[in-house]
Amino acid sequence: MIRKTRLFTPGPTPLLPAAQFAMAAADIHHRTAEFRALFLKVLAQLKIFVGTKNDVLLLSCSGTGAMEASVSNLTSPGDRVLVLTAGKFGERWVELAKAFNCQADVVKAPYGQTFDPGQVREALKPDARAVYMQATETSTAVRHDVESIAKLIQESNSGALLVVDGITGLGTTHFDVDGWGIDVLIGGSQKAVMIPPGLAYLSVSEKAWAAMESAKNPRYYFDLRKERKNAVKGESAYTPAVALVAGLGAALDYIAGQAGGDLGKGRIALVDNAQINAAATRAGLTALGFTLFAPAAPAAAATAVAVPEGIDSGVVVKALRNRFGLIVTNGQGEMQGKIFRVAHLGFFDCLDTIALLGAMEHIAKDTLGLPVTYGSAVAAAQKVFAEAASSS
Amino acid sequence: MIRKTRLFTPGPTPLLPAAQFAMAAADIHHRTAEFRALFLKVLAQLKIFVGTKNDVLLLSCSGTGAMEASVSNLTSPGDRVLVLTAGKFGERWVELAKAFNCQADVVKAPYGQTFDPGQVREALKPDARAVYMQATETSTAVRHDVESIAKLIQESNSGALLVVDGITGLGTTHFDVDGWGIDVLIGGSQKAVMIPPGLAYLSVSEKAWAAMESAKNPRYYFDLRKERKNAVKGESAYTPAVALVAGLGAALDYIAGQAGGDLGKGRIALVDNAQINAAATRAGLTALGFTLFAPAAPAAAATAVAVPEGIDSGVVVKALRNRFGLIVTNGQGEMQGKIFRVAHLGFFDCLDTIALLGAMEHIAKDTLGLPVTYGSAVAAAQKVFAEAASSS
Repeated sequence: MIRKTRLFTPGPTPLLPAAQFAMAAADIHHRTAEFRALFLKVLAQLKIFVGTKNDVLLLSCSGTGAMEASVSNLTSPGDRVLVLTAGKFGERWVELAKAFNCQADVVKAPYGQTFDPGQVREALKPDARAVYMQATETSTAVRHDVESIAKLIQESNSGALLVVDGITGLGTTHFDVDGWGIDVLIGGSQKAVMIPPGLAYLSVSEKAWAAMESAKNPRYYFDLRKERKNAVKGESAYTPAVALVAGLGAALDYIAGQAGGDLGKGRIALVDNAQINAAATRAGLTALGFTLFAPAAPAAAATAVAVPEGIDSGVVVKALRNRFGLIVTNGQGEMQGKIFRVAHLGFFDCLDTIALLGAMEHIAKDTLGLPVTYGSAVAAAQKVFAEAASSS
Repeated sequence: MIRKTRLFTPGPTPLLPAAQFAMAAADIHHRTAEFRALFLKVLAQLKIFVGTKNDVLLLSCSGTGAMEASVSNLTSPGDRVLVLTAGKFGERWVELAKAFNCQADVVKAPYGQTFDPGQVREALKPDARAVYMQATETSTAVRHDVESIAKLIQESNSGALLVVDGITGLGTTHFDVDGWGIDVLIGGSQKAVMIPPGLAYLSVSEKAWAAMESAKNPRYYFDLRKERKNAVKGESAYTPAVALVAGLGAALDYIAGQAGGDLGKGRIALVDNAQINAAATRAGLTALGFTLFAPAAPAAAATAVAVPEGIDSGVVVKALRNRFGLIVTNGQGEMQGKIFRVAHLGFFDCLDTIALLGAMEHIAKDTLGLPVTYGSAVAAAQKVFAEAASSS
């Protein structure tokens, strides 16, 4: 039988057709008026999408490149920084701090959990230059409470910058960048904005720009001050990924169009969409007898699902792919083999979720031998969708 | 919330991405070696897809163009022909026969039903030049028994040609073109072969070629003898729809790939795929309380569903589109407002069917006010898929 390939992975996520077409048509040179108009438009759209008055820059790199930029541009060797880590991407902040010779105080939460505010308060030293954290930890599908951490920093006397990796958080959780005081918020193209990998974007506060003046760590390709200077003219410092920029513009147009052309409301609708699909998926999988890995602080970007004792989660990943062409991801780092992850961020609708749960009913029964009543996972999700429809 | 557009229409059907990419890349002139190689390859593939040793021609027109060609090339004014009609497309044969001044004996079955063999036998006169029929009547989603009609013609002393509109039948029902003696079998591009409208193809038997020599009806663009002569060289008589030809080649490659590169087996798998999805859809809709419009002879190409008395089927069509972005079609001709039609032909997989039924559960409950247990339609379909999986 026919099996379509369906990505349910937390990046890359399913591509928006309108963005694919814009990419295919992007036969543009980057030092032309045509590209400058496109680049300026996309930068302006990104400010609305991020929801900030701060500058938003666009870099041709993966999200990790923007993470590096927010270390190399803001710190000097020997600087004290606070890193909050609860998974593989938190560990990446630790590695980056080390690579740029910062002295990292680390607050660690167990995989599948989020941080204890008291512990963070205690670890935040007056001389901390910056605090690095995730909005959502993709490896465990946990949502961290950025607002609380931001408040905690404001209330301290540290003056630390707040740098947030929102790569899977943007478009799946609400931020008030300027109100909370997020100095840097990082996003990636292959996430909620529905295009392939290759672009990262980040908002930069005035406080962060000021800090860059004294930051001594080496940077060249990721020199944000250079990018800011070029961005005003509608250019990037180095050759940009032109087709991806065109695709991003089309995707942000689409997201705006979901709310009658209002990109700000479109962003909110996108977050709601992820949250409703996440809730429906959790209801469905719980009905099938699965255990959620991060029940206390689940991210809407993805759902991490524990498999029964003695089973390798890779078996589920493989069965979904082989039988249904449906791609989910295994756990990362220490969670490999213990969980699998299903994404909700970006271009997913309720019928995708129903299809996923339909496939899971067969996998739960035939691959895992669970007692399954056909339709039960879908029924649990349907109730979530019905409630969402009646309350909207 | 996000709503993806999903075609569940019996043509155009959902496009195969690989075919879309091949079409986008088809920057080829048609009087070149490159195009000739492509055209010859596609014609050879079509013979395997149709499953015949007869010539198969490819025309740049919709299916109706090939229907016209099989009247204008095979008949002379005043010729007696037999037309079997049970819906809008059967009526098209009647109109074509009239347009080319043939004298049509018509066997008519009510909408939603198929023909009585006794009636056909009686209506088939010894001097009938040809019999025109559908393999499946798309307007009512009824499957006709081509094999029986072919046998009935063989057993008669009429010598009539058998011309079959297989536009929605090809890829959804099994044919033995040469064994049964189908003289002309017509297909269209926007159906089971997963590409947009614009191409028609037809197989032509030696008996039909011989009949063309004496056929006096006027034809120019649809002159099949001219096409046959050009096809040998890898050309079409007039400018072909180049991108669609490239897309068709990619789609037939994909269908072959579903059966390890064997296009003949791929065609069989495609028919099975449609039949299983059709059976699952019917089980699901019946579980919801809908009545099938053509329960006696349902086509696997599409399912026609009656709506409860006093309700216009357009309401269901509109609600599915507005709430879920899901496109089904209303009835055609006299069936408009009475039925809606859901397609299974071409690029559909079981998760599409589950998604459709998930949407239908909400529409049945919220739009039609039927008593619905969430998950019940999906559960009925799941049993069909489970049975198919265990027997394959």
